[in-house]
Amino acid sequence: MLDVAILGLGTVGSGVLEVIEKNSDAISQSAAQEIRVKHILARRDYPGAPYEKLVTKDFSVIENDPDVRVVVETIGGIDAAYEYTKRSLLKGKSVVTANKELVATHGYELMQLARENGVNYLFEASVGGGIPIIRPLSQCLAANKIKEIYGILNGTTNYILTEMIKNGLSFETALKDAQEKGYAEANPDADVKGFDVCRKICILSALSFGRHVYPHQVKTEGIESVTLADIGFAGKLGCRVKLLGRAIHREDGKIAVYVAPHLVHDDNLIASVEGVMNGIIVRGNAIGDVMFYGAGAGKLPTASAVVADVIDAAKHISARKWLSWEDGADEIIYDSALLENSWYVRTTAKKEEIAAGFGDVQLIEGEGEKIFVTPSMNRYDLEDKLGGMSVSAAFRILQ
Amino acid sequence: MLDVAILGLGTVGSGVLEVIEKNSDAISQSAAQEIRVKHILARRDYPGAPYEKLVTKDFSVIENDPDVRVVVETIGGIDAAYEYTKRSLLKGKSVVTANKELVATHGYELMQLARENGVNYLFEASVGGGIPIIRPLSQCLAANKIKEIYGILNGTTNYILTEMIKNGLSFETALKDAQEKGYAEANPDADVKGFDVCRKICILSALSFGRHVYPHQVKTEGIESVTLADIGFAGKLGCRVKLLGRAIHREDGKIAVYVAPHLVHDDNLIASVEGVMNGIIVRGNAIGDVMFYGAGAGKLPTASAVVADVIDAAKHISARKWLSWEDGADEIIYDSALLENSWYVRTTAKKEEIAAGFGDVQLIEGEGEKIFVTPSMNRYDLEDKLGGMSVSAAFRILQ
Repeated sequence: MLDVAILGLGTVGSGVLEVIEKNSDAISQSAAQEIRVKHILARRDYPGAPYEKLVTKDFSVIENDPDVRVVVETIGGIDAAYEYTKRSLLKGKSVVTANKELVATHGYELMQLARENGVNYLFEASVGGGIPIIRPLSQCLAANKIKEIYGILNGTTNYILTEMIKNGLSFETALKDAQEKGYAEANPDADVKGFDVCRKICILSALSFGRHVYPHQVKTEGIESVTLADIGFAGKLGCRVKLLGRAIHREDGKIAVYVAPHLVHDDNLIASVEGVMNGIIVRGNAIGDVMFYGAGAGKLPTASAVVADVIDAAKHISARKWLSWEDGADEIIYDSALLENSWYVRTTAKKEEIAAGFGDVQLIEGEGEKIFVTPSMNRYDLEDKLGGMSVSAAFRILQ
Repeated sequence: MLDVAILGLGTVGSGVLEVIEKNSDAISQSAAQEIRVKHILARRDYPGAPYEKLVTKDFSVIENDPDVRVVVETIGGIDAAYEYTKRSLLKGKSVVTANKELVATHGYELMQLARENGVNYLFEASVGGGIPIIRPLSQCLAANKIKEIYGILNGTTNYILTEMIKNGLSFETALKDAQEKGYAEANPDADVKGFDVCRKICILSALSFGRHVYPHQVKTEGIESVTLADIGFAGKLGCRVKLLGRAIHREDGKIAVYVAPHLVHDDNLIASVEGVMNGIIVRGNAIGDVMFYGAGAGKLPTASAVVADVIDAAKHISARKWLSWEDGADEIIYDSALLENSWYVRTTAKKEEIAAGFGDVQLIEGEGEKIFVTPSMNRYDLEDKLGGMSVSAAFRILQ
């Protein structure tokens, strides 16, 4: 019997309760013991709920209960989540979380604290929702040097882009639709501005390359600037517009990480990842390209990843899992604007202006606008050549 | 320092040597110790090779060397591989393999033997080449009841079908091309008749549902009967022809497992898995559909999966990994011919004959032939209704 406490009873927290109850047989078998929820930290009472008596508003009850060996943090954000995570680890309790913001911001420190206290800090659910990605990255690909990891890491923006591509909705209409369906928050900034992807690619990069990458080190663009005109022109080029998080380990040891909309060719499997689904490609020096695909969010998928970590923590209650990285530093970061690729440019500039900057590129004409694809170059050179041209959009084309 | 012996020096065996050398830093870090190849069992000498002095033709040298804690079996097939695996386990050595035939045939027995001797029998590379699938299935999805697992499990047949679809090659020409490229054996039966997929789906089924499924219990069809006519008609239906291995856990606890060509709709991501790549979909009750995609064969991808298992064995040298299932039985098998779905039928029968069996189905006419799609029914009902009709092809349509 292993006693667990759940902090927070929102979507993920209540999903964890549901999965533990629904799949108790499979879970007991995997964990080789029963998993019992002993406390739930919540801000209010839940009179009449089957777990009514488990609810407490006082974290110190959990902190000071020696029976509780694993704490599931589903509060989200930094403040309270950060404090309770530290206090749990200091009391020798393993902590499991889906909190990408906390891991991306304080992951290195919290893993150190877990190590010092002989326990584990696990966060499979922080990236890709229910898709197993953290554990395959840290274990299964141990025999590979990982060269690059990229993918569609946010279901909300992928849903919006898919609606624009498949049903011709404008960004605004697609966003409203996503909000009505519960895929987007009332304040959608964390999704549409790319912050959520930024946190996730920080975590994937750290795991893959062994050094913490902090969100403020990552150039992040969202999808607000993507229009139906871009979607249409991309289609003519045999591409779809996708928001990608991308981390590259360079030969010189430096790490380039960024978030931006890309044109992805139809023959790349990632282009076929639609709706709220996520797809993550890992490129290893022995394995080549591997893709992990599934629901990147949602109550039960995310909860199932959290519970898998709880099982893992239960099985490693007196041992440490290999899951760590070194601290970050500005010197290890390579300016992503220096990465070279072809660019898709949409502009109202005249043919002659474009030719002056880019030579004899093929132009595709639209309503009052035209697009062209540049030769491979970095962002600074691109901006140089664009000069005073009026540019409506400039997106990288994934090679 | 962990001493390892490699049995066999074919494609996989030499790949394992190469990966251990190439990625020694990453491997030592993951395994928290150096991994050293101490012996290589081979049928001939390798004069001048850097590993010349490691080669032995006598298995008992390895068997009786107490330094060797992990044996990598890359011989393939049953006979010698089976004997050496047993003898290694009996001597308290963990065994790592890519040998799907051996695992599908004697996996239950060998895992029992490993358990009795306090060691591990690991086989990540037996399914999906380098794609991490065995470990995610056994660990990451521990919080799910798995309802179904299916996919493209053989790169050779997927390459042939892709060439037929994309380049209009006949089966015979595409097979010859695959042989010239080294994707298919001189005797291609194990691939094109579906035996290879059969072994892999047995392993995936056993891991997912906890009971051994033996290859002789699995109805297995290959792709020899697939023609360009089928490829063309499938395209008109918005589908691609794919060879799938499929295992379903029924509500009544029984397991249905089979291998057959299917028509897969374009909007299923598995339809976009092309060439020698593999794609495996796992359907869990909490997680929904998750897909794992990558190179299903090839020297380095497969070797990287083997080495990941070696690392895992090294880290668990005095502990057992959770990796086991119960023995099989005929009573747990559900006759896959009773599974219901729509069928694609190609026939030279007359309109009236078809209408007599299937009612008012839409016919698509080709050269002297026509095709139609049946309502959902099982295979026996289908054959009943087809009666004396001359049928050129009848494939399941994946729902």
